[in-house]
Amino acid sequence: ALATPAVAQANPEVRWRAASSFPRVFDVLYGTFEKVAARVAQLTEGKFRIQTFPAGEIVGGLQVLDAVQAGTIEAGHTASYYYIGKEPGFAPFTAMCFGLNTRQLTSWYRYGGGNQLAAELLNEYNIHGITCGDTGAQMGGWFRNEITSVEQLRGLKFRITGLAGQLFTRLGAAPTLIAPADIYPSLERGVIDAAEFVGPHDDERANYVRVARYYYAPGFWEPGARLHFMSNMRAWNALPDQYKHALEVACAEADADMVARYDFMNPQALRRLVAAGAQLRFWPRPVLEAAWKANEEMNADLARGNPRFAKIMESYTRFRTEQFQWFRIAENSYDNFAFSAAQTVR
Amino acid sequence: ALATPAVAQANPEVRWRAASSFPRVFDVLYGTFEKVAARVAQLTEGKFRIQTFPAGEIVGGLQVLDAVQAGTIEAGHTASYYYIGKEPGFAPFTAMCFGLNTRQLTSWYRYGGGNQLAAELLNEYNIHGITCGDTGAQMGGWFRNEITSVEQLRGLKFRITGLAGQLFTRLGAAPTLIAPADIYPSLERGVIDAAEFVGPHDDERANYVRVARYYYAPGFWEPGARLHFMSNMRAWNALPDQYKHALEVACAEADADMVARYDFMNPQALRRLVAAGAQLRFWPRPVLEAAWKANEEMNADLARGNPRFAKIMESYTRFRTEQFQWFRIAENSYDNFAFSAAQTVR
Repeated sequence: ALATPAVAQANPEVRWRAASSFPRVFDVLYGTFEKVAARVAQLTEGKFRIQTFPAGEIVGGLQVLDAVQAGTIEAGHTASYYYIGKEPGFAPFTAMCFGLNTRQLTSWYRYGGGNQLAAELLNEYNIHGITCGDTGAQMGGWFRNEITSVEQLRGLKFRITGLAGQLFTRLGAAPTLIAPADIYPSLERGVIDAAEFVGPHDDERANYVRVARYYYAPGFWEPGARLHFMSNMRAWNALPDQYKHALEVACAEADADMVARYDFMNPQALRRLVAAGAQLRFWPRPVLEAAWKANEEMNADLARGNPRFAKIMESYTRFRTEQFQWFRIAENSYDNFAFSAAQTVR
Repeated sequence: ALATPAVAQANPEVRWRAASSFPRVFDVLYGTFEKVAARVAQLTEGKFRIQTFPAGEIVGGLQVLDAVQAGTIEAGHTASYYYIGKEPGFAPFTAMCFGLNTRQLTSWYRYGGGNQLAAELLNEYNIHGITCGDTGAQMGGWFRNEITSVEQLRGLKFRITGLAGQLFTRLGAAPTLIAPADIYPSLERGVIDAAEFVGPHDDERANYVRVARYYYAPGFWEPGARLHFMSNMRAWNALPDQYKHALEVACAEADADMVARYDFMNPQALRRLVAAGAQLRFWPRPVLEAAWKANEEMNADLARGNPRFAKIMESYTRFRTEQFQWFRIAENSYDNFAFSAAQTVR
């Protein structure tokens, strides 16, 4: 049956200020935020305008959640794992070591309970969150020397953030937190031995290849990294329903679009990086196995001390078990043959 | 700078009738169509209403393109490869044997030129197309007997559609076109030896496991199958811009959502199918290699006789080469370790 015609309503003009955790130079990260704002304007005939600001202009890149919580700004585009200092339970909403890949993470959010669990946590911070873009599986970073064994991780001064830093501590490394702008000179002067960032497209701009040429794959601690569009809860609740829907669907489009853009850019960047001297390496299997075991132990330790982390990880891990089993059947068996067939079938 | 306030316009009430190529029983396929219609209504305050019809109610499942072209209905949700009888160039816009997987296909559409190439073709049929949902990598179908060699494909009466049918002819099989409702009895009576459909969730409903228990992976001819929302060009052009944006973004959401729903449903269905007696089998490598070679030959033959197919495939194949190389580095090396680590790392 067709609906009765909608009552004509004059929706209000709404202006939001919104801050990104990323500077403009990372054009896929920041560009996704701009695309969301542009889409929302299109969908509301220009009545709902979100003015976007790069990291540092009105809010520091790692203060986005705090500013949205306080209502200093109405919204932001950020990664929840920047805030694990407040609560380790923020980690799985961006990326977990040996966790769900990009497609699996979308399924967990939409159908496996992820969105509800994220809402429970974010609501306590006075925030309404919507997933908004993903990087795809990241690279494992730039190393001044080859890593051929677990032993070589011992004492390694590795720029890496978040729970992955804690994981590398368990593997004997010495993770350090260095602001992005300081990574290059620190590698050059040998203050650090290695640094991980994102993937070829973003890494190329930082030019790490000139000071640390071993480029490792994969970034097993970020098999996908999901961003969130976070809105101050009062600002969100004040929106007309149509504007809420516009923001939701623009962010859903970002979940499809951002990784598609990375998938387009990364192969080109990687080719240039290899031409510039990057030495591609895969992690030795003993390193992956040691990391897998250390990660299982770390997550168990975190869960013992934190019922919320335990609850989130119970859902996440159950979902992961099912996804990993199923993906081996059709997706992965296809990928394994097809990706190499052009080289191997004669 | 903030825009000047939009001029208030009373957007018109628009009612469309739109037909799916899928019956209601395939709830993810048909449900995606319903979700798009519901989202468009939300985004337009109920002013743009798309009334959805399952296959066969107002238009036959394989006549959707024709009905939209003629303007009998304003729109439809269908797979372009149903129309390869008109033009083989329709095939790559849904799925190609050994082609791009779901994520790669999204990147080709958005950044690799796919959308422009699809528009060139569809515009000749008086149609505006938007990608709208994907199945993920499909399964290879149900077989009454095990397939352990290429030789066993000879004479095999295999229910399979489209270019993949032509491929299996080259491999010596006898592909047959049978309507979905006739597959089960045909398998039961031995009129056919095998049949492929989609994946565990949809295949379970058809209950093929009772009459052909060998379930092969992967469906290398559908490493993802993309659907399109097709609009009659005159109807599309008559839409206010806001309604066009609403339809575009609702379909983009479907590109993220549909495969996420399949990823959630398929593992559960597969578990039940195995419990019901399904025997999971991977294709023997010689079958995959023979199919790869036959496919390369088939595509070359088709391109020789058809400049349009050649043009589309030139773009598609160049993109595939880049994607397959890049995905081996981060995504696939991650997947290969992580998906099996829980079983293999002790």
